This record gives sequence, C-alpha cells and structure tokens, in this order.
Amino acid sequence: MGANFGKNYCVSIFGESHGAALGINIDGIPAGTELDLEFISEEMRRRAPGRSELSTPRAEKDEFEILSGFVNGKTTGTPLAMIIRNTDQRSKDYSEIARKPRPGHADWSGLNRYDGFNDIRGSGHFSGRITASLVFAGSIAKQILKEKGILIAAHIKSLKNIKDRDFTEEDISLENIHKLRNMLLPVLNEEIIPEMEKVILKAKENSNSVGGTVEIGVTGLKAGIGDPFFESMESELARMMFSIPSIKGLEFGAGFSIAEMTGYEANDEMYYDENGNVKSYTNNNGGIIGGITNGMPITFKVAIKPSASIEKKQKTVNLYTKENDVLEVKGRHDPSIVPRVIVVLEAATAIVILDRFLEDQKYGYLTDLR
Amino acid sequence: MGANFGKNYCVSIFGESHGAALGINIDGIPAGTELDLEFISEEMRRRAPGRSELSTPRAEKDEFEILSGFVNGKTTGTPLAMIIRNTDQRSKDYSEIARKPRPGHADWSGLNRYDGFNDIRGSGHFSGRITASLVFAGSIAKQILKEKGILIAAHIKSLKNIKDRDFTEEDISLENIHKLRNMLLPVLNEEIIPEMEKVILKAKENSNSVGGTVEIGVTGLKAGIGDPFFESMESELARMMFSIPSIKGLEFGAGFSIAEMTGYEANDEMYYDENGNVKSYTNNNGGIIGGITNGMPITFKVAIKPSASIEKKQKTVNLYTKENDVLEVKGRHDPSIVPRVIVVLEAATAIVILDRFLEDQKYGYLTDLR
Amino acid sequence: MGANFGKNYCVSIFGESHGAALGINIDGIPAGTELDLEFISEEMRRRAPGRSELSTPRAEKDEFEILSGFVNGKTTGTPLAMIIRNTDQRSKDYSEIARKPRPGHADWSGLNRYDGFNDIRGSGHFSGRITASLVFAGSIAKQILKEKGILIAAHIKSLKNIKDRDFTEEDISLENIHKLRNMLLPVLNEEIIPEMEKVILKAKENSNSVGGTVEIGVTGLKAGIGDPFFESMESELARMMFSIPSIKGLEFGAGFSIAEMTGYEANDEMYYDENGNVKSYTNNNGGIIGGITNGMPITFKVAIKPSASIEKKQKTVNLYTKENDVLEVKGRHDPSIVPRVIVVLEAATAIVILDRFLEDQKYGYLTDLR
Amino acid sequence: MGANFGKNYCVSIFGESHGAALGINIDGIPAGTELDLEFISEEMRRRAPGRSELSTPRAEKDEFEILSGFVNGKTTGTPLAMIIRNTDQRSKDYSEIARKPRPGHADWSGLNRYDGFNDIRGSGHFSGRITASLVFAGSIAKQILKEKGILIAAHIKSLKNIKDRDFTEEDISLENIHKLRNMLLPVLNEEIIPEMEKVILKAKENSNSVGGTVEIGVTGLKAGIGDPFFESMESELARMMFSIPSIKGLEFGAGFSIAEMTGYEANDEMYYDENGNVKSYTNNNGGIIGGITNGMPITFKVAIKPSASIEKKQKTVNLYTKENDVLEVKGRHDPSIVPRVIVVLEAATAIVILDRFLEDQKYGYLTDLR
Repeated sequence: MGANFGKNYCVSIFGESHGAALGINIDGIPAGTELDLEFISEEMRRRAPGRSELSTPRAEKDEFEILSGFVNGKTTGTPLAMIIRNTDQRSKDYSEIARKPRPGHADWSGLNRYDGFNDIRGSGHFSGRITASLVFAGSIAKQILKEKGILIAAHIKSLKNIKDRDFTEEDISLENIHKLRNMLLPVLNEEIIPEMEKVILKAKENSNSVGGTVEIGVTGLKAGIGDPFFESMESELARMMFSIPSIKGLEFGAGFSIAEMTGYEANDEMYYDENGNVKSYTNNNGGIIGGITNGMPITFKVAIKPSASIEKKQKTVNLYTKENDVLEVKGRHDPSIVPRVIVVLEAATAIVILDRFLEDQKYGYLTDLR
Repeated sequence: MGANFGKNYCVSIFGESHGAALGINIDGIPAGTELDLEFISEEMRRRAPGRSELSTPRAEKDEFEILSGFVNGKTTGTPLAMIIRNTDQRSKDYSEIARKPRPGHADWSGLNRYDGFNDIRGSGHFSGRITASLVFAGSIAKQILKEKGILIAAHIKSLKNIKDRDFTEEDISLENIHKLRNMLLPVLNEEIIPEMEKVILKAKENSNSVGGTVEIGVTGLKAGIGDPFFESMESELARMMFSIPSIKGLEFGAGFSIAEMTGYEANDEMYYDENGNVKSYTNNNGGIIGGITNGMPITFKVAIKPSASIEKKQKTVNLYTKENDVLEVKGRHDPSIVPRVIVVLEAATAIVILDRFLEDQKYGYLTDLR
Repeated sequence: MGANFGKNYCVSIFGESHGAALGINIDGIPAGTELDLEFISEEMRRRAPGRSELSTPRAEKDEFEILSGFVNGKTTGTPLAMIIRNTDQRSKDYSEIARKPRPGHADWSGLNRYDGFNDIRGSGHFSGRITASLVFAGSIAKQILKEKGILIAAHIKSLKNIKDRDFTEEDISLENIHKLRNMLLPVLNEEIIPEMEKVILKAKENSNSVGGTVEIGVTGLKAGIGDPFFESMESELARMMFSIPSIKGLEFGAGFSIAEMTGYEANDEMYYDENGNVKSYTNNNGGIIGGITNGMPITFKVAIKPSASIEKKQKTVNLYTKENDVLEVKGRHDPSIVPRVIVVLEAATAIVILDRFLEDQKYGYLTDLR
Repeated sequence: MGANFGKNYCVSIFGESHGAALGINIDGIPAGTELDLEFISEEMRRRAPGRSELSTPRAEKDEFEILSGFVNGKTTGTPLAMIIRNTDQRSKDYSEIARKPRPGHADWSGLNRYDGFNDIRGSGHFSGRITASLVFAGSIAKQILKEKGILIAAHIKSLKNIKDRDFTEEDISLENIHKLRNMLLPVLNEEIIPEMEKVILKAKENSNSVGGTVEIGVTGLKAGIGDPFFESMESELARMMFSIPSIKGLEFGAGFSIAEMTGYEANDEMYYDENGNVKSYTNNNGGIIGGITNGMPITFKVAIKPSASIEKKQKTVNLYTKENDVLEVKGRHDPSIVPRVIVVLEAATAIVILDRFLEDQKYGYLTDLR
C-alpha cells in the first residue's frame, strides 16, 4: 500500500527504477486546465540527474508521455495518467546486494516487508527516481495555484554545516522563484555557494555523501484554509513530506527553536498592515495555527539525510552465511541529493496545497445561506 | 473536517472545551479485548490538569463514560464510543477574545475557517482538552500492543534549554515505562529535574510559558511493517503528531542532525546480535527506512511550542474598531503543557502503531500461498 | 469497521440496542447552519416505534442530546455529536438466542465475525434502532439541501403484493412531501391504504411479517453532479442503501425492467422544455447517466425484506448440542418495518446527496480560470 | 474523481476510448503472487469485441503491458501498473455528437460535469472499454482467491425476456466455471441459447439493442467476513457494481422477490449439514446477513440496460441551435453488451471479495490474545 494520496487532487504512483516504466495517475485535475508542457519538462529536468558535476553522471531524460485525460492542450477532467519509460538501465549484478543489505537503504526493511520478492535493481520502488512522478503532478498543481495567486518557493537552507538565511515574505515572489529555479544550488545568500560546492565535491572525492535542509515557503493563501486535528494543514503536509525518500525531519515556522522560546517570544503578535490585512510581526507558527492558515506565509523546513549510496566499505550482515560481513558498492552516485530533491519538495507541497485549496472551495456556496 | 483518523483502528473525535461533552468513537477494536479501566483512568489522570503546582489549578476530572461496544469487561468488536462531560466551566466573558484574537492561538485562523460561528469559549474545539479522547483511545491501543510485546515510552527530551539525554533501546522497558509514567517530569537523567522545575516556576511567576521537546520510543515491532510513500510509517506518525495542538516539529532518529552528517556517519551499519537478529550499531534512521520498520526501535522527537495562553499584555488587532490594540488575558494557565502532553503523544503513537500493526496482519495468510 | 461514511459530510455511528446509548458524530456540517430541532424531532418520531397498531408497541422516545458543534442555535462547523440514551430495555433472557441463532437475523454471521463477543441483546449493533442516528444526520442534511432547492421524497411503492404507482416529477414537491410525511402509510394512490393495512394486520395476527419496496425521489439537482466509476452517484447511494439493515435490492429508474427493454425503448429521448431546460420524455435512467446527474429527478427503489423477527416456530441449529433444533421467540415485533424505514431511507439519501453536493462545489471556482 | 477503489486491494483506473492508452494501477497485491498471464489474456479476450456475430465487429486486441510490480513471473508487492494501447481508433467526426447529445449516453451529463472539456471520442472515459482494466485486476484477484478455495461464477440470468434458471450451490464449481467461461452465451439451461441468439440477432437487424440480467455466485467464503453498516459486504459489492457502466439494478439473494414474501418464507431456516457446517435450506439472503457472510454462497443479480448505442433515429436537443432535433448515429455497435459484460462483473466481484478477504485477515492474530 502507500501508492495513493489526496482527497481532492488524488495521485496514484507506480514504478521501479529498472522496470519498464514509472508513472502516476492523477484524478481531480479540474477540467479545462491548460497545461504548459514546457514548464513541466523544465521541472522534470530540475530533478533529473547529470546536470553538473555536483550530481551523478547518470543521464536519464525523464521524458514523459501523457496517456489520458488531456486533449487539445487541455485537461478533460477525467484521470490523467503519465508514464516515463526507464532507459538507462545498465545491466548490473545485484546478487551481492541481495545477500548483503546496504546500510541506510531500504534493502533490509523492504526484504522483510515483501518477503524478498520486491525488485531490488536500482533500489526498485524505493528509488528516488519514483519521485519524478510527484514532480509531474506537482508541476500541474503549481500551474493551477499560480492562476489563483498562490506561489511556492524553496531554497537550500543548509548543506551539511553551511547555512543559508531564512525566507522572508518578500523572497517568495514570482521573480525570485524564477531565479531560484535556475540555480544549481538555489540559496538566498549567494556568497555561500562556493562553500557548498566545496562540501559536495569533497564528499564526492571521498566516496561519501552529504545531507542538508530545505526551506519551503507558500504565499497567497487566505486565512482559514485547513482543519483542526487529523486534516490539519501541518498533518497533510507532513504526511506528504515524510513520503519522500530520505526525509527525516520537518518543522513549521520556528520549529524546534520554538521549544526554547517563552510563550511571549513565540506568540506571533498581530497588527493591521497598510491594506487592512491582519499580519503578525513574527511568523514562528509558520502561517498555520490550529491546523488552519492565518494569512501569513506557510514556511517549513525538512531535513534530508545524506544519500545512503556511498562507495565506502561498510559493515553489514550476510544473509547467506548468516555472519557479519562488509560491503563495498561501486556505482554512479550523487554526492548530495539535496539540489535535486528541492523540486520534488516544491512539487509535493503543491500537490498538498492544491488538495487543500479544493477542499476549502466546497464551503464557497455558504455565503448565500446566511 | 479532520475528525477521523485510521484505516484499521479508526477514531472519530468531537467536543469543545465548554460544550456539553467531548468524546470519541473508535471502530476497529478487536472483539473480545479485555479493557483495564483502571489503567485507562490513570492515563487520563496523567493528562488532567491540577496535579501539581507545575500545571494549571483547573481541576477537571476527565471522568469517562463508555456508551457502546463494551460488555462484561470486554469489547464487542463494534464501535466503542466514550464521552467526558465538561464540568468545570467557569462562566466567563469571551467577548474580548471575540473582538481581539489572541496571538499564538487559533482565534484568528478559526474565525476565518468557520466564519465566526465556532465556539470560542475555552478555545472550543481547538482546546488541548479535546486530546483527552486521544488518551482514551491510545490507552486501549497500548493494552493491545503490550500483549504483542510492543512497548511505547516517552520522556521530556528538553524543557526550554534544559536537555535530557536520548533514549537507548534498554530505556524502553516495562519497568522504566512504569517509572516514567509516575514522574511529574519524566526524564532519564533525574539530576536535571530541579532545573526544569525552576524553569517552569519562573515562567509561572512571569505570567509566561515555556515549550520543550519530547522523545518517543517504540520497541517490539518486527522488521517489515509499514509501506513506501504515502503510507510510510513516518507519514502516518507525522500526520498524527501534527494533529496534536502546539506541535511544530518532528524528527525521526537523528532527525535534523542527520543533515549535518556524511553518508558514512549517517548510514546505520548492521550486524547480527547474539540472538541472530539483524541490528545496527547506530539508529540514526529511528528504526524506519523506506517507510518500513527495520527492527530497531522507532524513535522520534517532537517540538512543543510554549503554551500560547499567557497573562502578559500582547499586541493584536481589534476586529471591531479595525485598529491595532493590546490584549491582556487573565486565567488559569499552564506555565508549560509539556508534562501534560507527554501522555497524549504516547497515546497518539499507540493509535498509529496499532493501526499499522493491524495493517500488517492482512498479509499473514501468505505463508501458505508460496 | 463500517462505522464511517462520507467524504464531505462525514458520519461516524455507534451504539447497541441495549447499551447505554447510541449516537453519531458528524463532521462537515457547514458552520453557521441553523438547525430546526423541532423538525429533527419530528423526523425521529417518524422512525420511532409505537405510533400505531401497525408497528411494535415498544415505546422508545428517541430523545436526542447534542453534545458538541452547536451553539446558540447554529452549528459551529466543528464535529457535531449526538447521543440517544437507551431507556426501554426490558431485562430479558438472551441465552436461548446465544445457543440458537435466529434465522434471517445476523446472529450467526455476527457470531462468526466477532467470535461471540458482540452484544446480542436486542440484536445489539445490528438492531434497526441504530438507524435513528442516520435519521438525525439526514434531517440536518435535508435542511441544508432544502435551502438549495433540493427536495427528497419517498413513498411505499409496494407492501407485499399491494403496489402503489411510481413517482412523477410533480409528486416530489414541498407540499406533497409534507403530506407524505404525515401519513402512517405514505402512498401516492390512497385507495390502496386499506389493503396495505389489512396485509400488515394479517401478518401481525399470524405472528408473521411482511416486506415491501420504497421509492425515493430527489429533485432540484442540476445536471453534472457525480463522477464516473467508483464515486458514481449510483455507487454512493448504493453503498449507503445497502448499509441499512434489511435492504436486499436497489434499482435506479426503470431498474430491472430496463433489462427487458430494447435500447430504443430504454434511451431517454431528450427535448427542451418551455424554460429552455434539457429534459427527457422518460426517465428510465433515474436521473443518472455515467454516474452523473442529468437534470431529471433521481429516482430509485429499494427492496426491504420482511422483518426477521417473527414469533413462529423455526428450524435452526443448536450451537451447544451441535444438533438441529427449533426456536420460538416471543417479543414485541413490527409486523412490517416498511412504514418506519421510509424516513431512514430518506435520511440516508439526504446524507449522500449533501455529500455529493459539497463535492461538486469544489469546482465552483473554475469559471474564472478559463 | 472516482478513479480509486479499495482499502486493501486498491485500484486506480484511467483512460479514454480514443486516447493513447487506458490502464490501471493496482496497490496491495501480495508480494510473491505468481501470475498466470495466459489466464489474464483469456479473460481479456472474453470481454474483447469481435468474437462472434453477436457482438460488434470492432477488433480491439486489448493487449496489455505490465509496467511495474512484476519481476520474474511474480508480483513484487509494490504497485503493479498495466496499460493497453488504443489501436483501432477509426478517425471519425464527433462534431454531431458534440452538438446533439445521444439519448441514454453520458454525453449530456458528462458535458455538464466537465464543462465540455471531456473527451467525447468513442464516449471517452465513459466507454465500456475502460472496464478492460477491471478485467485485468479481477483476473489477478481471481487467481489469489482460487488458491484460498474461493470461486466466482456468473451466467446470463436473462436476456430481454428469455430467462435462465438460478444458480444452485453446486453450479459454482471449478468445472462449471470452466464450462461457462467458454460459452458465448453462458447459461445454465442450454436449451434457451437459440432463443437468446435470436433475440440478439433480431435487435442487430433492427439497429436496436437488448439488455439483460446476470447472476453472480461466490463460494468458499467462511462465515464472518464483512462488516455492519457502511462497509457491509453488500455495500462494497454495490459500490463496485454500480461503477460499471450500464448497470441499473442490483439484488442479493431473492432480492426484490423477498419484498413479496412473509418473514417466515424469507428467513433462511438453518441446519447442520453432514460435515457439521451450518447451512440454510434456502438462501434468500444471498449469503449475507447484517452485512456479513453467513457461510452460504453469495449470490446477486445485476440489471444491465440495453446498449445506448443504436442506429435508430432518436429525438434529442441541439445545443447549438438550442432547438429540439433528431440524431442518427452510424457505427459498429453491440446489439447486446450482456455477453461481454459478464467477465467484467466477475472481475469486479473478485476485486471486492479479495479486498474484503484481506480486510478479514487482520484479525487473524487474535486467537492467541484470548
């Protein structure tokens, strides 16, 4: 299980790294939505490997084919399915991994979950490659949200110990999003880029990898979207974020820092801005209180673990000999997946936000009831 | 929306702080489960206010009444509903809050969500009091899980800047759980208790509040429970954790720290223990990889914001005058909700773990298929 | 499982016939909905037993208490929970039923489902009494739908072999609904009432029972509501109708008769009426094609089996002796539940229609997108 | 919406008649299931058109490609996606249908649902062709169920006014299923075949179509599977059956006839058979009471409307001129879809039964709890 997400904008994903194809079925795209296929392709490229020496030299193109739900440049309103054929599948021997589960990978947990029948080639269904489908669905969601004035931005908040500054509301503008999208290492403080590059290249040199954090910001949502408890805006975003491989932490607004504040420091005091909108001086709550938007930007950060795929020799168990053993895996790995995962996080955010936006619409008819 | 959670152990909650009653409907409790009502009452008491000078002097008893699904000391298998009557509802004037939304509270977001019709007395449905129902459902789940050897423990990992040490696997024992349950400030390193008390009492003195973090640990789950992507063990736990009022952060295993590690440091190298079980030397992944348990304890930490209810004067907007204003709320508040929220977090964890445990059972029949 | 229904107007039910209380939690009632409590009580009375010699002399009052989600005569938008205390529980010996499952009842299937732990007193959770909660939730839904011009009517289409005529569109008017609601045997052709009474009283005399069919009609829904496949309007209504105890058949429009027609006879030829609305000369499809409303009234019929509770001696198994045996149950039974189940069917229909109405609202924002 | 079904065996469908491809994503197939691809192909052929003069001469091959979730002849446990390319798409002019909605088709309801953006070529997503995906998913479910001793059979119960006899328990045997699967008009009483053929050929000659009913039977399910209320076995089957295009009625066991019985006639009196199993002399309840199986075969009948696609001249509206008009559609149509829809109904049944079978498994662990 686990393939399906969404109540109003519903996705159903499938695929393995080395199978015939991966893809997604999307139900709930409003009929008549014009799709900018070029934009979608660009988003796919942002995730694709091989863009620079900072990522793996594998060169998958991630060319998608839309199978249904799309006629004459517009969505039909019925399910839109998309597939990406797998092409760059180098024949490789996976027998060692079958014997010796790789530390940090889902080899051991997956073996137990699927009694050894899951496809382990290229990590199979656990491969980050499967997230290409999320990028596709998210890039459609982004287009719809943009029409409604809702924008989603992301930057690398930290790469190992190199830290960028936090988003301000102004950073989440169309112009800035355009700029960030075109950076290999999208950060707000560009002075830190050389240091980040150095950290990545050093990891590469050492057959090692590094993790980082990404901050996401969403503007343009009115106050009052979301729900208390199990469909809180945080719950929905969290469920999605922790679906993405390698995510180990999530915090909204001030997040873990808020735990060290006093109530007086943490509470976001409010005021009317010049347009009569209710704002808060700070945004420690990340735009969500009680599970519901308050009109401030939604901001959150996720922690991305360093890629588990490294070439270093590591201790593991040997399932055949039933003894402790060591493993050394050669391959074409990303020294850091952080730069490639950003677009996945943005897309995943867009899927949730559109789902919640549609959810909120159903009360639109109320005005005339009262 | 937002009242319902769970696929196999399903809860549906309701209630407001000052309404007639709050409660829960639980569907999916296995028939014939003996309930230890005394244990449930104890758990309720752990959450209830007024236990010491560290919490609010309000003295709600949280006495529950089971309305269905329970006959002769055993569950019937059909829905079990429970209610708690609200008794200590001091008549109070809420007109000022209606005019001036409290910073850090869901007053403003809720007003927008419900067009002003929601019950604001005592924070209404946004009150932490509603989590009493989760404690009830969780204490039933705990009983079932315990029979299967699955244990859930929690301790205060930090209170403002006072920090406890992390859980080891050994800490999550029946004996230690018993001990922690009976501490007003459940920590592993008892030497820090006086400092924590001091921090809380100082906040109380200053009409302020403090936040903290809680670490939860789960042992006894076999490897292979969970799913990739949208039903990942992390996703399910995260959806639940961010349902609980005041939670602003969540991290599994090493969490945000993992983002500063290299892959070699982060990967949990594996070995066979003396009993032939696969273990890892470290547990940076918090017992979950690829959304699926790996046999190590599940560990995660949540960040709890300082209670938004403080008596200090704060800036806010006046919705009647449409001008900026100040607000000063008198009342009986918790200087820190951390000690009371621990049992809620444990219970919420138990609900999710039982739901996933039942989910895993459905593949039990497979053995004979192959 | 099975307690929860609905995506936008969500209900969660509980209760047993002889437990402390039965009830429902409703999530998704739009905030600010004024509730006509007198109307709700009247609807409850329509279902309640003891109204005439045609039903059981048991005299449950079905007095409901709203526990949450309702302040100052209006809904708050957060979950609204309601309970009905069980009062008329005559102490009775259920040991014979425990030994000898009653034919036509859920005694045997329930015993297997719940391993013997379910509450069998008064049929427990399988009692028709549990549907009082549906009447409650449906009577709220009716109020909301009525504001939007959507009306739901029902009449006894047949009682044993006595048949009423079918609904016409005109029959489904406010005036006629008012009239039908106040009839003990609501039929369109009043001449058949004496015959129906005779059939019921004869069954009563013979310690037997009779079944029947009910036709439900819905007007005021615009064309275009519903979905293809698994959320088709028929699928949603069907899932709900077959939730109601004793329902064994469901047909939309011409239903089973359509299977004997030719395509030319069955196809509903279309025309513009005087107001420029698209109508069809016939309504063999019952207002739904492809799972989606077409602007004609939704019409469907359900088959209700004769009450399984009869006083006649019947063959059954003896679970203690493991031998065939006979059973004779004395009690206060309905000779026909058809007159009492009508309001349940109307209410159940209202729940589904409101859920689908809200579902449709979410595309309301689209107009300005194109 | 409407693309997704299932809690444990989850399907997500997509496709239009004349789009690039149609297909399905299946989540929840137990890992390690061997698939008999030849069996699947045979099932697909049973639905495919062009098998005899009784159906449309269109010659789609319905060749499927599995994209994921299947390695070395066995399922992996992760989502299994399948597509069927559309090939026989004769270029045709659909402008007349766009102007004049066809009576009995989803043209008018679909136009309103999707604001005119849905794909109308070959009926688009409303085409019966989309059910090929259900046949695929159902043929996998059948294989799994067969291993557990659960069999699903179907026969034409009536074609227009020509009626077959009802299933007995003995009819639902492996041998008989094999026989029925290989008949063009699968009936129990073979003497009626010539009459049925005559009815179909006459409809064909008259440019008309005929409907019918199909009876489905399921054996091998133990007593105690299912749930009361909203997940009743009938509710789940009903939701699925009414998903299938052209189904307008559904009845379990004696169905609508039960409404004319007395309780004494309707109640299925019980006895121990020679093996000590609890059986009933009759099966008016169709194997389900209180939403839960009772150990008797599940039997139900569905009413299938005559294909709306006929070549006769029909009255309709002209959306361009806004006047009443007539329509005459030429094409290659089925004079009766009943023979082709049987395998769809069997498959749809298999999907639901497997989903419920898996649901029941989760309580398997209970035995040792008590």
